[in-house]
Amino acid sequence: MYKQYTIERLKINFKTLEEFKKFQSFGAQELSMLEDLEANMIENDSNSPFYGIHFGGKLVARMSLYTISQKFDRYFEPPQDYLELWKLEVLPEYQGKGYGRALVDFAKSFNLPIKTNGRNNSHDFWSKMGFETVTYNTERDRGENPFVWFPKGVSEQTL
Amino acid sequence: MYKQYTIERLKINFKTLEEFKKFQSFGAQELSMLEDLEANMIENDSNSPFYGIHFGGKLVARMSLYTISQKFDRYFEPPQDYLELWKLEVLPEYQGKGYGRALVDFAKSFNLPIKTNGRNNSHDFWSKMGFETVTYNTERDRGENPFVWFPKGVSEQTL
Repeated sequence: MYKQYTIERLKINFKTLEEFKKFQSFGAQELSMLEDLEANMIENDSNSPFYGIHFGGKLVARMSLYTISQKFDRYFEPPQDYLELWKLEVLPEYQGKGYGRALVDFAKSFNLPIKTNGRNNSHDFWSKMGFETVTYNTERDRGENPFVWFPKGVSEQTL
Repeated sequence: MYKQYTIERLKINFKTLEEFKKFQSFGAQELSMLEDLEANMIENDSNSPFYGIHFGGKLVARMSLYTISQKFDRYFEPPQDYLELWKLEVLPEYQGKGYGRALVDFAKSFNLPIKTNGRNNSHDFWSKMGFETVTYNTERDRGENPFVWFPKGVSEQTL
């Protein structure tokens, strides 16, 4: 048993981007959103591929989730649309409270296969989340450490 | 001016894999090589996508380099074969001596465009290496921080 949290799809605005700066994985994706906002190339409330959990008015956990089209699927059998999950991160002082699991469960709720690139030493976490490793393939995976989640009836694609 | 180092294409054998364990970015790629060795699925001296520098008989720096075919090129104009560089890493006590630059220069010597996914806070390093950022694209780049190197006559592909 663990707590229920409310997961929101994050709006791209200056407040969100300011909150993103507290996350270690702040990078090209966030900088690009910031530039687009500043140049008025996107609306102040556009939806982002980010989902997050707020606690006390503060963003404490987030992840990015994106649907990859079936035609690019090299992980799952039968080939199908799947979710790529990245930048799953919980602020240090909020870790161990089930925020990470709540985000992963939200991703699973679409009932599509999920693929993520695990950080070093993340094997135990992804294993607890029900994710599995796949057979590493240099051309497909390069420097990644792929972990995948199979919904019922889905298995690993043989390359 | 900096020192000249000898860059070697690394052979996959138990000695190399044992040395790889000292590098932070040890992951699915290395585990897969180890399993293939143990199962006799690869020769003890097969070439790997890794290049490295030895000092005093010890592997002190490495990177992985892989040619991506022109048909998958979404970074460069005109589209062409390019190199994907990953796991560039110098053991902590050997940093600041030009090993990283020597490996990057080796990658450049093929005179193909290069793309890498920069770690957090690696902007200054890649900039010093002559690499540039590209316009971030969610579908292509997802959680990556792409840095690219353009040989003469090559520019960024407009998506």
